[in-house]
Amino acid sequence: MLKKVSILSLISAAVLSGCMSSANPANDAKHTMQQADTPKNVIMVVADGMGPAYTTAYRNYMDDPTTDVVETVVFDDILTGNASTYPHHMSGYVTDSAASATALASGEKSYNGAIGVDHNKVNVESVLQLAKKQGMRTGVAVTSQINHATPASYIAHNESRKNYDALADSFFDDRINGEITADVMLGGGTQYFERDDRDLVAEFIDADYQYVDTYNKLATLPAGSDVLGLFAPVGLPPALDDTREHRLSYLTEHAIKHLENPEGFFLLVEASQVDWAGHANDIGSAMAEMDDLAATISYLKDYVKDHPDTLVVLTADHSTGGLTIGANGDYRWSPEFLKDMKSSVHTIAQNMPDMDQPLAYISQQLGFAFTEEDHTILNKVLEHEDVVQREAGLKKFLDMKSNTGWTTSGHTGVDVEVFSFGAGSHAFVGQMDNTDIAKRMKAFVSGKARQLSTSDEPVVVPSDDTCNFEKDFHCE
Amino acid sequence: MLKKVSILSLISAAVLSGCMSSANPANDAKHTMQQADTPKNVIMVVADGMGPAYTTAYRNYMDDPTTDVVETVVFDDILTGNASTYPHHMSGYVTDSAASATALASGEKSYNGAIGVDHNKVNVESVLQLAKKQGMRTGVAVTSQINHATPASYIAHNESRKNYDALADSFFDDRINGEITADVMLGGGTQYFERDDRDLVAEFIDADYQYVDTYNKLATLPAGSDVLGLFAPVGLPPALDDTREHRLSYLTEHAIKHLENPEGFFLLVEASQVDWAGHANDIGSAMAEMDDLAATISYLKDYVKDHPDTLVVLTADHSTGGLTIGANGDYRWSPEFLKDMKSSVHTIAQNMPDMDQPLAYISQQLGFAFTEEDHTILNKVLEHEDVVQREAGLKKFLDMKSNTGWTTSGHTGVDVEVFSFGAGSHAFVGQMDNTDIAKRMKAFVSGKARQLSTSDEPVVVPSDDTCNFEKDFHCE
Ligand SMILES: [Zn+2]
Ligand SMILES: [Zn+2]
Repeated sequence: MLKKVSILSLISAAVLSGCMSSANPANDAKHTMQQADTPKNVIMVVADGMGPAYTTAYRNYMDDPTTDVVETVVFDDILTGNASTYPHHMSGYVTDSAASATALASGEKSYNGAIGVDHNKVNVESVLQLAKKQGMRTGVAVTSQINHATPASYIAHNESRKNYDALADSFFDDRINGEITADVMLGGGTQYFERDDRDLVAEFIDADYQYVDTYNKLATLPAGSDVLGLFAPVGLPPALDDTREHRLSYLTEHAIKHLENPEGFFLLVEASQVDWAGHANDIGSAMAEMDDLAATISYLKDYVKDHPDTLVVLTADHSTGGLTIGANGDYRWSPEFLKDMKSSVHTIAQNMPDMDQPLAYISQQLGFAFTEEDHTILNKVLEHEDVVQREAGLKKFLDMKSNTGWTTSGHTGVDVEVFSFGAGSHAFVGQMDNTDIAKRMKAFVSGKARQLSTSDEPVVVPSDDTCNFEKDFHCE
Repeated sequence: MLKKVSILSLISAAVLSGCMSSANPANDAKHTMQQADTPKNVIMVVADGMGPAYTTAYRNYMDDPTTDVVETVVFDDILTGNASTYPHHMSGYVTDSAASATALASGEKSYNGAIGVDHNKVNVESVLQLAKKQGMRTGVAVTSQINHATPASYIAHNESRKNYDALADSFFDDRINGEITADVMLGGGTQYFERDDRDLVAEFIDADYQYVDTYNKLATLPAGSDVLGLFAPVGLPPALDDTREHRLSYLTEHAIKHLENPEGFFLLVEASQVDWAGHANDIGSAMAEMDDLAATISYLKDYVKDHPDTLVVLTADHSTGGLTIGANGDYRWSPEFLKDMKSSVHTIAQNMPDMDQPLAYISQQLGFAFTEEDHTILNKVLEHEDVVQREAGLKKFLDMKSNTGWTTSGHTGVDVEVFSFGAGSHAFVGQMDNTDIAKRMKAFVSGKARQLSTSDEPVVVPSDDTCNFEKDFHCE
């Protein structure tokens, strides 16, 4: 059975990577690169749920409306390709975050719900586990609980993403070369790691991990520590409500501080809550989570400038919510109504009945002045006894103001963008499958890439430099 | 005023092309190419309305469900980047086809509705017009009327896309070096070219153009003719209803036959009706129009194999309909209900009341057997007196069967994919703006690129070869 699977997946890899297709007449340009292009450190950034509409929406959201152009954002000079996201065919064409994280981590398609196991529920090795086996340091920095589908698929194996306690147990119990799989784990999840039936936090402390539960305490740890940082019972607060607006950027910076070492490191970063905003059809939170991701990528660009031996790949596992920029026949999108939000619609919906002047409170929290028509709509929202209905009313109101569209509370199947920079980023160019990302990272981490690129035979790789064309034509 | 505009657009070009941004640490890989990379012939393919969800949906639609992978399609080995589509800021963030076609043709942002004029209604030169000025032959092959927004923006100038008669007049009256702008024009539009007030067809015939009004007559013309081919009163029939399912591919092949000459040619090809299917929220027609586009690209790949001095760029002007693969909280998309359609829902809706056994007719036309639940739904659709309501009912039925989502009858603002192959395709890599596509094509057509690339100084350009990485790692 296993044998059949791996033959099929080899065929799959060949077909999807375009190796069996020689039809592209564009592929006539080659150049050579030397070992500088093999990464010592590998950073995988997953923006959960970030379909292509999210990155375009974020560019518009960040636009300075007083200029003639829509300014570029941090993603625009690192786009290198697109990736398909479909799960194993037993789950059709629309993936969940477990199957797609398993694909991105291991290179194997699996069924929706699978954590680090293939479609026969056989364990598959993630690039993080391979990195640990190779003697690199390993970590995750996420805004969900650390045992949520995406980070769990890099660290553990389970037939179901819903087995949160078992996944938390695996984070401690699974060993690679006798060691715990991840050296640094930053995110949420005390509810799963400090349980009545088992205190995993105590076990990590006994195993010489530093344990912290606030962002400030994290900053006090000496560089190079093994760290368990759990900053919330389940996921972190939404970016709009958290004490640190750019908490993912902060966690990423600290994870790297503890991972850096002569043998290199593998770090998984996840902007987990882009997806949660998408599921909630909450455009305000979607843009705030994108902004935390943008700060993270901005930090990583600076890091790679100083550490050119580091590879960063950013992609999404799928798109969420069926977000569209414009809706209802109207050729308009108005991000100006989203730019000055002070807290999430969830928090506003909770607090609004307790305010003396609820409309003034909502206006101040959303960050714009209301029209008469807005007053009428919001007074109806205020009538709801149920906080869930008030929150839904606020989201509908912001969708109307911004003219945002949604088609689902779940995921959609559109291909996602692939961004990459740093050593080895040439390997993530053009159309690919999500499994290709894992396969290419594993080739780097396994040392095969290192052997190849340090041999006399230079490695032929593609480049993704777009600016020089313009420069040669004087940017006309 | 004009001076201000062009300074702003220079800044815009520099910012958007990434020239002012040196933040990308990935841009360290360069290689050199010689003049073989400067195209003699330039073919621009616009798939009107084809946002990223359309290409992914088409891959799923073409999938062989008996294999473990989703097979790649004709677009997968030619993806090289993404493009932003926003119009001039006076029209916000969501473009119409006139502003985006003007941007793609001329490199200038304009307002929604503008045909070949900038936001001050001043004429701007298209790459087709520039090509004609340079002595190249020029043409358009489209499935809309030939004076519809996209082709009109390459051939004419008008402050409004709605001035169809004036645009048709311009097709004859505008002269470049004393000659009619386009040498070959294939598509629909007899209603605008044979009018009571002016018979443009007669005028083209008097100017030594061959005129044909059927696909078969087109095949009888000697190669190298000047041709006006109008095959329908307005747009061509939908792909699902036309006598030739792959009529765009057919028109493209014949356009090239008449354009080939030692000085090179510029051809605009437009899959115009992907957009129309999107506006109608008609997933069956959307996939059929994509299939005609795929046949066209397949033909062009063969052509470029035999004529490596030809550049082909494919992109969309925007996305339409807010199409999503999956909807309503259900992680499912079922293209199997779209694969065997015999005619468009419009035609089925027209014919169904006249049939003895309407449900059997619908089942035969849609190409799948109905459940009891399907019968109940379709019997209700049959009750509508109004053909528009019957058509809407059939579309809702197919959306339900396939689990397709839509958010609008208009356009959305998501970035679109850019595909390119052939000589000069290295210039269309990474994130770009729609205006960059025109600027880069114009650089090639104007001869500046030719001068540069034949000088001693080699032109530094990026490559878009993805396969060799895999080859070097033995496709693992
Ligand atoms: Zn999700
Ligand atoms: Zn349209």
